[in-house]
Amino acid sequence: MELLYKKIIQKELQQLEDTLSFSISSDINLATEVTQHVVSSGGKRIRPVVCILVAKMLNYKGSELIKLASSIELLHTATLIHDDVVDQSSTRRGKESIHTKWDNSHSVLVGDFVYSKAFQLMASLDNPEIIRILADSTNRISEGEVLQLSLKKREILSKKDYFEIIDRKTAELFKASAITAGSLASCNEDEFISLTNFAIGLGNNFQIKDDLLDYFGDEELTGKKIGKDFEEGKFTLPLIISLPLMSEDHKFMILETLFDNKKSDFKEIVKIIKDTGAVKKVEEICNQFSETCFKELDSFPESDYKRALFDIVKNINTRVS
Amino acid sequence: MELLYKKIIQKELQQLEDTLSFSISSDINLATEVTQHVVSSGGKRIRPVVCILVAKMLNYKGSELIKLASSIELLHTATLIHDDVVDQSSTRRGKESIHTKWDNSHSVLVGDFVYSKAFQLMASLDNPEIIRILADSTNRISEGEVLQLSLKKREILSKKDYFEIIDRKTAELFKASAITAGSLASCNEDEFISLTNFAIGLGNNFQIKDDLLDYFGDEELTGKKIGKDFEEGKFTLPLIISLPLMSEDHKFMILETLFDNKKSDFKEIVKIIKDTGAVKKVEEICNQFSETCFKELDSFPESDYKRALFDIVKNINTRVS
Repeated sequence: MELLYKKIIQKELQQLEDTLSFSISSDINLATEVTQHVVSSGGKRIRPVVCILVAKMLNYKGSELIKLASSIELLHTATLIHDDVVDQSSTRRGKESIHTKWDNSHSVLVGDFVYSKAFQLMASLDNPEIIRILADSTNRISEGEVLQLSLKKREILSKKDYFEIIDRKTAELFKASAITAGSLASCNEDEFISLTNFAIGLGNNFQIKDDLLDYFGDEELTGKKIGKDFEEGKFTLPLIISLPLMSEDHKFMILETLFDNKKSDFKEIVKIIKDTGAVKKVEEICNQFSETCFKELDSFPESDYKRALFDIVKNINTRVS
Repeated sequence: MELLYKKIIQKELQQLEDTLSFSISSDINLATEVTQHVVSSGGKRIRPVVCILVAKMLNYKGSELIKLASSIELLHTATLIHDDVVDQSSTRRGKESIHTKWDNSHSVLVGDFVYSKAFQLMASLDNPEIIRILADSTNRISEGEVLQLSLKKREILSKKDYFEIIDRKTAELFKASAITAGSLASCNEDEFISLTNFAIGLGNNFQIKDDLLDYFGDEELTGKKIGKDFEEGKFTLPLIISLPLMSEDHKFMILETLFDNKKSDFKEIVKIIKDTGAVKKVEEICNQFSETCFKELDSFPESDYKRALFDIVKNINTRVS
């Protein structure tokens, strides 16, 4: 079933794509070419979608929304490009990653180019509050990246550290998407708080579901290779929750595979995790975040835009890609 | 002889160091530790010095100057950190570079952290014009980096491309340092143009002298390894100007060394370049840039700050480090 937002902000989504294409064009051809490779390969655009829907739910009628939404998508794209150098991921959005198609230098410098384009778009908004929010978010996201790096010595990650990382690396930009839209639409303080809580809930939910799909998703639907996080030695919630629930033998086997990059049958690992009942526990956590989202949305007047945001929250819980 | 600026903006330089130290502190210890490694190792701070002197020459009395100067130094630092990944330089400012002491991932992510800190400082200025200037500069600098990368296939670099690269990679941030200071001090349009021309001249001059020192400098005074550019296969002005002036044999030997990373006696290469008379030609180009700087400064009223800027221009031509 098609999501509601695709119908009601169709025009804005087209403007978003146009602004993204226009923004990344540069008189330095290589910069355009490499950026295009990532930006044109799609992605869900969920952050700009949230930004657009929130502003419209708050009745924003001005002309700055698409620039704001585009700058947020570019910020996100820049972090993905640099992430891929760190993880040495060979694919991104079903295509070769930049460092695979070109090299690390291209990823580093073109990532900086995309950041600078995001920064230029923000600066063109002439709204100091929005610039401050996005500067602070950029900082929290980059701190999240460094935190993850500092915990990467392949020790077992605690649930607390996991949530700290996803709060910074994912929920933060969802939050910025919603509250900058709120700021653009001159929302009041209560609305600002509701938007903050709503978007943090949504961001957490989105990331946890993403981590679940890395174990239990369908490669054809997600376009992502299953088991990528595990292969990169990353502890995500399904693993963190299931480890204390499995037998010592299974635990030993899984940690040995993870720490020593040993070959293993990933299907077997998936089965072990499933058998612990961890999936249900992870889904319960997701549901709690969804409840928060629904509750916070309740305080806004009814509209198609609000219904579309509801729809997105519901869809995340059943998402298959 | 000590430069005049060290005496007359001593207080501001201390405030700059304090603001830099404060800005880079983070609750993520690794981010602070790695950033400290680069920021505390000094560097000339020439960009913030220019920014401070220009604002003071224009009689600026407000409280935003040090924040602006610090954000410019952090922008510069972030580009250095990412540059080192691209060049795989083993040292920076006489210390191990980040990717040598840690690894590439640390350079990429901590570079992003430093960018975000620069961005937060700028956002705190609440001056949309300054934010726009710095966003545009950040973009031109990153485009310069990508341009350099696209020309890196070790073809002979033309003089035109060389100047395009140094204009973007070096002169651009000198320009931003001067004109944001002008904007802060509410300068008029003529002053804005003079500051632009002055700073572009200074930036070009500074970079060309830097490239000259890479061949003819004294390692003990510069703290940099001689021949680093040549070793990395970089064409800089001394080489570009001397190549057409040397014998075919010498040209063949030098290009072979450069392209194929062949072992060679760097002293011999320095001697060949020197014997072509290229150094004098490079110095003439530097002198032309200096003349522009002096001419543009002339239009401002006399003051110690203006004399200190004169002093910096003169010193660049005789600089040994």
